[in-house]
Amino acid sequence: MVEYEMFYSNPTTKAKRSEIRELLKLTRKPEIISFAGGLPSPLSFPVKDIKEICQYVLEKDADVVLQYGPTEGDMSLKEELAKWMEKDNIRVSPEQILITNGSQQGLDLVGKIFLNQGDIIIVEMPTYIGGLQAFNSYMVRMEGVLQDDNGMNMDLLERKLGELKGRGEKPKFIYVVPDFQNPSGVTMPEDRRRKLLELASEYDTMIIEDSPYRELRYTGNQPPPIYSLDTEGRVVSMATFSKIFCPGFRLAWIYGPAPLIDKMVMAKQGIDLCSPSFNQAVAAEFMRRGLLSKHIEKIKEMYKEKRQLMLDSLEKYMPDSVSWTKPEGGLFLWVKLPEDMNTVELLKKAIENNVAYVIGSAFHYDGSGKNTMRLNFSFPSKEQIVEGIKRLSEVIKKEM
Amino acid sequence: MVEYEMFYSNPTTKAKRSEIRELLKLTRKPEIISFAGGLPSPLSFPVKDIKEICQYVLEKDADVVLQYGPTEGDMSLKEELAKWMEKDNIRVSPEQILITNGSQQGLDLVGKIFLNQGDIIIVEMPTYIGGLQAFNSYMVRMEGVLQDDNGMNMDLLERKLGELKGRGEKPKFIYVVPDFQNPSGVTMPEDRRRKLLELASEYDTMIIEDSPYRELRYTGNQPPPIYSLDTEGRVVSMATFSKIFCPGFRLAWIYGPAPLIDKMVMAKQGIDLCSPSFNQAVAAEFMRRGLLSKHIEKIKEMYKEKRQLMLDSLEKYMPDSVSWTKPEGGLFLWVKLPEDMNTVELLKKAIENNVAYVIGSAFHYDGSGKNTMRLNFSFPSKEQIVEGIKRLSEVIKKEM
Repeated sequence: MVEYEMFYSNPTTKAKRSEIRELLKLTRKPEIISFAGGLPSPLSFPVKDIKEICQYVLEKDADVVLQYGPTEGDMSLKEELAKWMEKDNIRVSPEQILITNGSQQGLDLVGKIFLNQGDIIIVEMPTYIGGLQAFNSYMVRMEGVLQDDNGMNMDLLERKLGELKGRGEKPKFIYVVPDFQNPSGVTMPEDRRRKLLELASEYDTMIIEDSPYRELRYTGNQPPPIYSLDTEGRVVSMATFSKIFCPGFRLAWIYGPAPLIDKMVMAKQGIDLCSPSFNQAVAAEFMRRGLLSKHIEKIKEMYKEKRQLMLDSLEKYMPDSVSWTKPEGGLFLWVKLPEDMNTVELLKKAIENNVAYVIGSAFHYDGSGKNTMRLNFSFPSKEQIVEGIKRLSEVIKKEM
Repeated sequence: MVEYEMFYSNPTTKAKRSEIRELLKLTRKPEIISFAGGLPSPLSFPVKDIKEICQYVLEKDADVVLQYGPTEGDMSLKEELAKWMEKDNIRVSPEQILITNGSQQGLDLVGKIFLNQGDIIIVEMPTYIGGLQAFNSYMVRMEGVLQDDNGMNMDLLERKLGELKGRGEKPKFIYVVPDFQNPSGVTMPEDRRRKLLELASEYDTMIIEDSPYRELRYTGNQPPPIYSLDTEGRVVSMATFSKIFCPGFRLAWIYGPAPLIDKMVMAKQGIDLCSPSFNQAVAAEFMRRGLLSKHIEKIKEMYKEKRQLMLDSLEKYMPDSVSWTKPEGGLFLWVKLPEDMNTVELLKKAIENNVAYVIGSAFHYDGSGKNTMRLNFSFPSKEQIVEGIKRLSEVIKKEM
């Protein structure tokens, strides 16, 4: 038989079966209350409208919506998106937008056009697991910068950039999730965003702004997107339909300086030719009918309550030495246990007690963060949130 | 402003805007009869059934079909596909199948798990342009083996493998499109398929079998898939819904030895998490209702006529010194002009005379094949086929 190991590429040889994936499998028993997923609630899907619009686009335009489409993405969808983003002071032409299969494909495209083996990139600690996965497949070296309650710490970033410069090295980009970050739930205020742009300019590097949750703010004011503050063309940004429409259509978009989007279009040609025309047509029509804003209001109402309930339950049941973030939006919050505790070991006990979370170390490029965990509040029901936090608190108390 | 060139990855720096893409843009005037596309006819889309099934899956299962799905692909779709492929003597479990966004993503995944910069692969001359694009992005070295009317020439392949071995080199894989090849339209008979497997075994390399047109045979008997003849686990194969259902759903599948599919699943996680659940559910239901086989019969009837008409028109109008392949299926045929003619230069004149094709050199990894062109017969109408071949013949005669 064939020895496949001899045929694998270097990233494939290096890749290990993900520990989290294996752990997540354990959480799929029906009796478990899981805060581990990152899924939107199915109650948030606009089923009736999608049903209607599927019929509409097939009656009106079957020849086009069932055919191959342009790699760049459906022009009418991109026009709708360009208009839509004006509310956030984002000024882009449709040519600066590329439709992708979820933001995950945006991350892969960023990797594809920017990264060579051995390149350095800077990531938040903690950061989005899918970002780590996408960039790791390009065999890069990662440098981490710690977050506080206002996102990536800019003093630490400045020090890190200085250190790298001292060694004659320069990161290709700084990857940030500035709005209700996955996993931490924290948001970067405007002054930090400006500082980030200043540092990127001073040290001549790029910024990748990944913002899947931006529209889901339940309280407080939204700082401007980093993209909208950029005057030098240093920012490439990502947004998605997965959390404000539905994930099952796999639609997201990436926007940025035209020459970079052009390179990504060329890369996407070799990657999958184009995103599904049908799905794009349905999303475009949903926007054209003005349904997106209304629908987002509904989702926010639903998640706002769940978020509050999770915060209240944590307050009520958790021991004093446990702390957590208070996200103003998004799907997640971040829990810190005392330094000497280990959430990987704790997970087995949590699962025995029918409650689950994602271990914090999965979100650290270097496997640190052993005493942290991520909790999702969008998917579980209100009853499950209360009961689940109660169970989790019990497990933690017993372990102390 | 930022000097983006300094940030690009090596493949991005190396990639040039494709000559063919630019040429294809010229062919988009409405007055042009284009044989350049590779599109199925919109008349072949099962619009009524898709409409019905979109409603059905949304009524029955909205929570699931609009949600994220497993990276591996929808289990019920994979079960349908495993059953479906039994007719070709392909025995795979659902775990050996991965659903992809078109076969193009299959090609990218093959590249991702197998290819390092500088690796050697063997391709047909000519070969599928999207294969060249996908593999080129991994910075490989390509070696070409000429085709004749029975596909890749096995004597030349054996010589090539011997030469490489003599230099201490081994190709990672041999990439073939064995059924009604894009672009040439030729099919590899069973004895060549067996010889290919023998050589792959002798020289210890893999075979990538890309077969998007297999179901579309209009005459003659179908040789067995290379996959079905393999006893050593050397073959990874690709098939697609794009030509037998519709391309606008972007659904294809790749199947092969379980350890390789497992590596591809891991790679796909970082690439785009999963393919659209909605689209997969619609395709699965289409198959479950037994509509796929019936629908393929309809498409074959439609294309069979067009193919015959194009062959007849070539016979009638082309000068004696021009030759072409006689495909028994698929969407394309391949035209050879006298050696001293150049189809790149000819294209400008063809476009002036309102007819278009794809230049043959685009399908050669080394830019050879200057006197060849690809013609598509699935998309143009019957009237367009006759008139277009007439125009093309005039242009060629004038140039001689």
